[in-house]
Amino acid sequence: MNPSPLLSELIAALQFLPGIGPKSAQRIAFHLLEQNRDKARRLAAVLERAAQEIGQCASCRTFCEQPVCELCQSAQRDGGLLCVVESPLDVASIEQAADYRGRYYVLRGRLSPIDGVTPEALGLPELEQRLAGGTVRELIVATGTTMEGEATAHYLKEIARRTAVRATRIAHGVPVGGDLEFVDGSTLSHALASRRDY
Amino acid sequence: MNPSPLLSELIAALQFLPGIGPKSAQRIAFHLLEQNRDKARRLAAVLERAAQEIGQCASCRTFCEQPVCELCQSAQRDGGLLCVVESPLDVASIEQAADYRGRYYVLRGRLSPIDGVTPEALGLPELEQRLAGGTVRELIVATGTTMEGEATAHYLKEIARRTAVRATRIAHGVPVGGDLEFVDGSTLSHALASRRDY
Repeated sequence: MNPSPLLSELIAALQFLPGIGPKSAQRIAFHLLEQNRDKARRLAAVLERAAQEIGQCASCRTFCEQPVCELCQSAQRDGGLLCVVESPLDVASIEQAADYRGRYYVLRGRLSPIDGVTPEALGLPELEQRLAGGTVRELIVATGTTMEGEATAHYLKEIARRTAVRATRIAHGVPVGGDLEFVDGSTLSHALASRRDY
Repeated sequence: MNPSPLLSELIAALQFLPGIGPKSAQRIAFHLLEQNRDKARRLAAVLERAAQEIGQCASCRTFCEQPVCELCQSAQRDGGLLCVVESPLDVASIEQAADYRGRYYVLRGRLSPIDGVTPEALGLPELEQRLAGGTVRELIVATGTTMEGEATAHYLKEIARRTAVRATRIAHGVPVGGDLEFVDGSTLSHALASRRDY
């Protein structure tokens, strides 16, 4: 018997988050109540605002609470380079890791006709129009290496061919700093097949 | 550059939760926005309500949104047994694991004069009054085995002695189902010293 039904409700709500099990949910709930009610209130407020206000950028489809995101508005970014990724998370990863100075296009998914994910759902017709517009010099395909990711990459290559834009694919191979013995077989065979002059 | 300042704010707020690092915070934020805005709103609402409404039980000091918690009100519980624990989390653990039918007293901390945690802060004078009242037959001391936990246990034993209530301490020893080789030295030496006839 839990002495507080509201507390049980809070633990259940936390448990629905990805990567949070029953024990972690309990620990988080008690932490917030024990030490930091203000933190709990701030989190509640920002969650509510984010759920309400964050929409998608009209230009690149990433998460954004303005009509067009800061990245797409920035004059410092090279509009001739367009990197296509599957998720807003990928934008965050590239921004944190690489000194990429171009723009992004976020599909919010990958082609999967079985699940009803069509080119239209991923904004691919709009992307083709944009490529046809002539400002993009290079389309960098950074979709994942799953089967659907590769199918999406192939579709993107076709769009680029039709609109006469150069398409490139980010390199796949052995992770930098990794020992060969820890690399899985398919990555290793890909790395060998894609070897370059040195 | 993150294209959405509100999203950055949400990630920062999630990151302050115990056990949630930057990557997990990002993953949770994107999950809530991508797939489940209603879930985000529900979580925000229950967080806000919990921070606002959950106080402490006037009788046992555990988290509770009513003046007295269901456990303390329940007629099914034996008022003669009182188990003293450090945290509301401990109540939840015992309730989930053991078929304990008595009541609890939650200290919300452990004695630590250096940090300003006095007997008064832990509600120990109120506990002594309650023991003096005569309804409690047995005081089960279930504080932790840290130095402060042991000091608290000792203080509880003194209170019980003064009020002529029987005090017991939960057993410490080798975990059930555990192999001896994985048990740490101090637990093992405690288990040997506390051996019982068999």
